[in-house]
Amino acid sequence: MSISTHGQLDSVLARTDANQPAGIERLMDFLRIPSVSTDPAFAADVRRAGEWASNMLKECGFESRLVNTHGHPMVLAKHPGPKGVTAPRVLFYGHYDVQPADPIELWTSPPFEPVIVEGPMGKRVVARGAVDDKGQVMTFLEALRAWHACAGGPPCPVTVILEGEEESGSESFEPFLREYAAELESDVAIVSDTGMWDINTPAITTMLRGLVYVEAKLKGPSHDLHSGLYGGALANPINSLARMIASLHHDDGRIAIEGFYDQVKPLPEKIKKQWDKLDFDDAEFLGKAGVKKGFGEPGFNAMERTWCRPTCDCNGIKGGYQGEGAKTVIASEATAKISCRLVADMDPDDAFNKLSAHLRARVPAGYTLEMKTFGKNPPIRVKDESPYLVAAERGLAKVYGMNPVCIGTGGSIPAVGLLQRILGVESLLVGFGLDDDRVHSPNEKFELTCFRRGALSHAAILAELAGLRP
Amino acid sequence: MSISTHGQLDSVLARTDANQPAGIERLMDFLRIPSVSTDPAFAADVRRAGEWASNMLKECGFESRLVNTHGHPMVLAKHPGPKGVTAPRVLFYGHYDVQPADPIELWTSPPFEPVIVEGPMGKRVVARGAVDDKGQVMTFLEALRAWHACAGGPPCPVTVILEGEEESGSESFEPFLREYAAELESDVAIVSDTGMWDINTPAITTMLRGLVYVEAKLKGPSHDLHSGLYGGALANPINSLARMIASLHHDDGRIAIEGFYDQVKPLPEKIKKQWDKLDFDDAEFLGKAGVKKGFGEPGFNAMERTWCRPTCDCNGIKGGYQGEGAKTVIASEATAKISCRLVADMDPDDAFNKLSAHLRARVPAGYTLEMKTFGKNPPIRVKDESPYLVAAERGLAKVYGMNPVCIGTGGSIPAVGLLQRILGVESLLVGFGLDDDRVHSPNEKFELTCFRRGALSHAAILAELAGLRP
Repeated sequence: MSISTHGQLDSVLARTDANQPAGIERLMDFLRIPSVSTDPAFAADVRRAGEWASNMLKECGFESRLVNTHGHPMVLAKHPGPKGVTAPRVLFYGHYDVQPADPIELWTSPPFEPVIVEGPMGKRVVARGAVDDKGQVMTFLEALRAWHACAGGPPCPVTVILEGEEESGSESFEPFLREYAAELESDVAIVSDTGMWDINTPAITTMLRGLVYVEAKLKGPSHDLHSGLYGGALANPINSLARMIASLHHDDGRIAIEGFYDQVKPLPEKIKKQWDKLDFDDAEFLGKAGVKKGFGEPGFNAMERTWCRPTCDCNGIKGGYQGEGAKTVIASEATAKISCRLVADMDPDDAFNKLSAHLRARVPAGYTLEMKTFGKNPPIRVKDESPYLVAAERGLAKVYGMNPVCIGTGGSIPAVGLLQRILGVESLLVGFGLDDDRVHSPNEKFELTCFRRGALSHAAILAELAGLRP
Repeated sequence: MSISTHGQLDSVLARTDANQPAGIERLMDFLRIPSVSTDPAFAADVRRAGEWASNMLKECGFESRLVNTHGHPMVLAKHPGPKGVTAPRVLFYGHYDVQPADPIELWTSPPFEPVIVEGPMGKRVVARGAVDDKGQVMTFLEALRAWHACAGGPPCPVTVILEGEEESGSESFEPFLREYAAELESDVAIVSDTGMWDINTPAITTMLRGLVYVEAKLKGPSHDLHSGLYGGALANPINSLARMIASLHHDDGRIAIEGFYDQVKPLPEKIKKQWDKLDFDDAEFLGKAGVKKGFGEPGFNAMERTWCRPTCDCNGIKGGYQGEGAKTVIASEATAKISCRLVADMDPDDAFNKLSAHLRARVPAGYTLEMKTFGKNPPIRVKDESPYLVAAERGLAKVYGMNPVCIGTGGSIPAVGLLQRILGVESLLVGFGLDDDRVHSPNEKFELTCFRRGALSHAAILAELAGLRP
């Protein structure tokens, strides 16, 4: 069977649409499997969800199998694409496990008995995993199904990996990537686990902040002291640690670590203009956190502060007496957890070294500072001129009638960093979730409009990618 | 029987000395009663120790009884003193309860089976409570016994109160003082629960620092936030609290709270000279805390910093993630316990107001600060010219052949503050403990030399006080 990458998209899109009712049934079947990866009681269900997805991929013409790990299995499926055509090799990533359903009493319908209900934006499916990430996985599985039906397979070589531990720490993911690196070799990855700007505005997340996370323990006296006996005569480790933390910022909110901003480039004018048009509402964003007035680096709004500017936050602190009432103690040590969110082109090791040097320079004479690191993830920024990004933009524009916006996200997505680091492949984060989808919360939902357009978008993006020479 | 306050001291001192062997036996009897006040299992023993002490006072001619409280009983004993003589009314304070003996395995002999052992400074008694405070209580009980034997009673009206809850929070002490205030009315109090400068140098503690202890809780966002999503866009409560704490001091160690030192007077020249002669060893003092280099208010040594200068110490801090590893959270709140040690003539309310205003002025816009206070104790300083102090100095000089030094202590002794506040009576802290007595630790001991001279000193001080007109 010969496969043409040109001229077939219209029939693929029509097929995707025609498949919708059955696609919704398939999604609901998928959602009925309680694949809660954190709870060992659901281990068999997790595997069953993996098998279910693997079978779907087989129906789409893929060679698919479960790869066992030390934790839950990975789904690994491959399709060679059309014979004789040189097209970019595409890697899809998603996960088939879900968050626990607790608190169960807040659900309006049982979390693993999906229902279709009418909402202000049309029909939606309500269930645990509806959008995170089973619904999003189904967007590209439905696109692959339509391509299979219309063209005998996708218009380019495709690998699909579906993780079963995304919600429980992804411990097996890195070893899996290392072991199967050769088999997974690809030109571009598409990750469907993020959101749109709003229901009508598609988005590609092109900036992800990186992270350096440390624990700093300041050790002073050999044991806890009576604050009457010793108070005033020596550096109090808690006060000293507070001074060290305070010194990390200038009064106006800028980070005061020497050279911290050296690698940070200003936002490209093109992106800045796009973002300004988004009408990001600082007050609404902060209001969701119960905060009336933002605070941060001067000259940036909350969107820029969280998408394209680095941070230095204390995530935890402890020292001395923690109980009720009073204890007149001078603690022998105090500990802080401190993390820096990094943006392109900051290097995590360099950021760690600068943070570490800053803190060490402020340790009281004779005291010691113990530093531990809990992970260093580099920041990610997809280059504007990336042909894959341009292809994905064109695919989304075809479905939505408008260009997607390139947005950032303040958090890290470890999978994206690992795909970059281990496979050397850049990820396009094309997701169809909405802000109000209640991810990780009771009554998680996915708009059927998003489901439909997501499937159409993946079908279109594949056509655009197939038009590229790798 | 007529009692003369003059000319009898020599016989009283001789009698005190002659009583020593029996006095040591009495002390050892007292120490055999495991009057651990914190542990309900020992409640009967605590009462037994109170009864034992009350009986001793009866043997000294006192009307003595146990006064029940909500906790352990108080011993309350009174002697009218010599008839027809107007002399200052003296109130003795001590406590008959002891600390728990744990860790029991570190004792070289059972804690409630007192033994006399030879040490580098002569014989000593080893047992829980040896010096804190049974041994010290016995110093004035032996003095009262000798006065009773030689003169039919003390040379002035004497009230004795012995507490049974000093090691467990003294909860009943304040209500007791309030209820029995009329009966306890006195001109001067003598508290025997402190130390000497060294075994040959008697000391009167004339300065005690006061205390203001607060808990400050900074509340920001309505709930914990994801540091990726919100980091950089709002004030992080932990970082903000750290800045507030850091702002309490200048870089050089001086307290930066506005007006904090306004009421603090310089150390009187006379006391400063006495202290300079003491050869206080900063390195040794700090070395016991495992600290190589002191830090504090410039221009003062460690002794001055802890005896006569105020402090502002953070005694506890907590916020955000406290567990192992990393959690990328921005905490909604952070809490610090902060205390200020106060010196004469600082007012606790004024210090609290200044601390509070300082912190409140630094709360990020829109955030709130909740302040709780856990006690405010005023500082205590016995005036150099107090006739009672001069009398006590003369009494000690008679026994030791040298004037005592007037020292300070960095901590508070709540009983002293309460005697001042509720009864309006000033306390002379005349104690006979040594730095190496292992108070609250295994193998607590009391030098028999200190026991003997302590009893002689109290006998002599009573004679000196009796010579005063109230």
